[in-house]
Amino acid sequence: MKFGGTSMAGIERIRHVAERVRREAEDGDEVLVVVSAMAGETDRLVQLCREAAPLHDPSEYDVVVASGEQVTAGLLAMTLQAMGVKARSFMGWQLVRASGVHGNARVEAVESAMLDEALSAGTVAVIPGFQGVAADGRLATLGRGGSDTSAVALAVGVKADRCDIYTDVDGVYTTDPRIVPHARKLDAITFEEMLELAGVGAKVLQTRSVGLAMRENLPLRVLSAFEDKPGTRVVAELSGADMERNQIAGIAADRNEARVTLTGVPDKPGTVAQVIMPLAEAGIAFDMIVHAATPDSGSSDLTFTVPRASLAQAMAVIEQRKDEIGYDGLITDDAVAKVSIVGVGIRSNPQLAAKMFEVLAERKVNLLAVSTSEIKVSALIAEAELELAVRVLHTAFGLDARDAA
Amino acid sequence: MKFGGTSMAGIERIRHVAERVRREAEDGDEVLVVVSAMAGETDRLVQLCREAAPLHDPSEYDVVVASGEQVTAGLLAMTLQAMGVKARSFMGWQLVRASGVHGNARVEAVESAMLDEALSAGTVAVIPGFQGVAADGRLATLGRGGSDTSAVALAVGVKADRCDIYTDVDGVYTTDPRIVPHARKLDAITFEEMLELAGVGAKVLQTRSVGLAMRENLPLRVLSAFEDKPGTRVVAELSGADMERNQIAGIAADRNEARVTLTGVPDKPGTVAQVIMPLAEAGIAFDMIVHAATPDSGSSDLTFTVPRASLAQAMAVIEQRKDEIGYDGLITDDAVAKVSIVGVGIRSNPQLAAKMFEVLAERKVNLLAVSTSEIKVSALIAEAELELAVRVLHTAFGLDARDAA
Repeated sequence: MKFGGTSMAGIERIRHVAERVRREAEDGDEVLVVVSAMAGETDRLVQLCREAAPLHDPSEYDVVVASGEQVTAGLLAMTLQAMGVKARSFMGWQLVRASGVHGNARVEAVESAMLDEALSAGTVAVIPGFQGVAADGRLATLGRGGSDTSAVALAVGVKADRCDIYTDVDGVYTTDPRIVPHARKLDAITFEEMLELAGVGAKVLQTRSVGLAMRENLPLRVLSAFEDKPGTRVVAELSGADMERNQIAGIAADRNEARVTLTGVPDKPGTVAQVIMPLAEAGIAFDMIVHAATPDSGSSDLTFTVPRASLAQAMAVIEQRKDEIGYDGLITDDAVAKVSIVGVGIRSNPQLAAKMFEVLAERKVNLLAVSTSEIKVSALIAEAELELAVRVLHTAFGLDARDAA
Repeated sequence: MKFGGTSMAGIERIRHVAERVRREAEDGDEVLVVVSAMAGETDRLVQLCREAAPLHDPSEYDVVVASGEQVTAGLLAMTLQAMGVKARSFMGWQLVRASGVHGNARVEAVESAMLDEALSAGTVAVIPGFQGVAADGRLATLGRGGSDTSAVALAVGVKADRCDIYTDVDGVYTTDPRIVPHARKLDAITFEEMLELAGVGAKVLQTRSVGLAMRENLPLRVLSAFEDKPGTRVVAELSGADMERNQIAGIAADRNEARVTLTGVPDKPGTVAQVIMPLAEAGIAFDMIVHAATPDSGSSDLTFTVPRASLAQAMAVIEQRKDEIGYDGLITDDAVAKVSIVGVGIRSNPQLAAKMFEVLAERKVNLLAVSTSEIKVSALIAEAELELAVRVLHTAFGLDARDAA
């Protein structure tokens, strides 16, 4: 069971969490709980670090911010004990070996012997998320949202049957309910679909945690920490009644996009690499590369997208290499957005992509770029048209709640 | 260098602390810094534990409250780095082995190899006070005020030349300046005197830390964290100019006293033990035992003092054993206080005790009980007369600041 920061914000809420844990434990299950810091606490600690030193040592940052989950782990353990539930906390540095860089480490291994012993003795193990011990023997944190990854890694470590992520939403929806009020909660979704939805802006779970669960084939559930509802199961493959589900799982909307177009680039092998490699080296994510040559002109236009926050940096990298690349013009646009349909059905049914383009064309939504993967089709459009696009696609693919009724 | 909670309260103050550490490091000294949590933070964490569970597991309490010093250690390390000082934090669980009970553990040993390496490489080591790792491999805290003890233990562990305790007072005074405004700051005081002063209510340093420094003969200094003043040296023996100091180091006042008198107890061997043993077994501290027999009557009165907070418990323990002990009456009084003169001079000069009684008699202060040790003479008096007693003794023993001028 993993509980997020909103459900750990204050003793009353921690008591509510403890009640849920107790019910689970009293059902005869062996229970391991991973907790986030109280809502707002990590931000407060990060802010202290910024004030202390704008450019701070990530190892010291880890020491400061890891404290938030330590506090909630101790508090939850003692609350459980007060309810008569056998429980104890373990620290990240006792159990979770991390690798990679401080401030953004990855779980390398879980020392499960101590945990196995506690669990089989009927003790609920409470563990601070988001942290472990690095190869240098010092505290390491996993990057923001890393508690989901801690939970999945620990679940894998103790060979858990399931990992339940309790959060402030009650499951995974067919799209953002702020855009489509009659969006529907999904009973089940595949890991791949979940990854694609997260990757295009539906951030219910940390992407890394879903990838890990998929690799280890560990079923997840996304549940409300506040209401007793079934939530959404995240599984390797849909089966049984879930197969009756729509071929499209959901529509994702992502405003965090900016478009870059280089005009008049030489139409020769290696041009795309010449532009993209320096971006990759600078750590800038890029997406939706479209390279369109004007026939017989010898030159071409190259368009790609980057996260909005990286646009200025991307422009600097490219302008530095103007002579090398040899382009005529550099055009950017940060009033763009990406709309995507996501579903395992896309793999076997190319008509779904065609239907998407047709629906958008009917509403005169102009496609600035298109990209497809096995289970996703994305279109780059003007940001002003994003909400319209999401709504019409949601309806067209039969996802509206009233369709199910 | 050890810094208390007031000097770590907020980034501005931490920066000020870092400045002091930098100066010390730039003088060519190897520097190890022990820090407290931000003022108020430990209270906040303790309160969270109380709300979570009134009777909580001390192991979980340790997990929660140890986080406060972890935060300040990381923040100070990164602040030092930002000033160009080589620094890094170490955690208590990496260095300090603790024994005894959770929530009130003792420092057992310091793993100094890692520290020695850092220090000789010119790195300032920053360490959270008040904590270590227990024999069970879990976090352990040392009891409130334990950061002083951490500092002394770590100083002993790395064979430091000196341990400087930076606090919100600028040294050790001849008495409580709230009672005597012209109390004088002492240049030097012996460990023994410091222990006696702490034991009777002058709490500048945690008693345990002074005892440890005395045993290991590690010189201490008590200094202001906010002003550049020399402070007070705490040493094994006074020497040189310090020997010119007054024979009496200071006057201590302690209001935390209650008096218990049993009348008509049998005047026979073993009576005192019969009363005192059950108190000791119940964990009640007792002090100033006076056993006065009425000649030829066969019975006697037994008077002793206990901390005020333990008075009700002490009465219960004694009333339970009324038949066994065989006393007539049980009289208690919690409007009493203890005034003491403390100084290494007392050992060689019995006239000092006589002078104390004479001065108090002149002002008609009634002595309810008297106790003496090698370097201390204490009198139990009515609480209403405490301030008067402190003032007249302070003047009589030549301790007033104007006497020095």
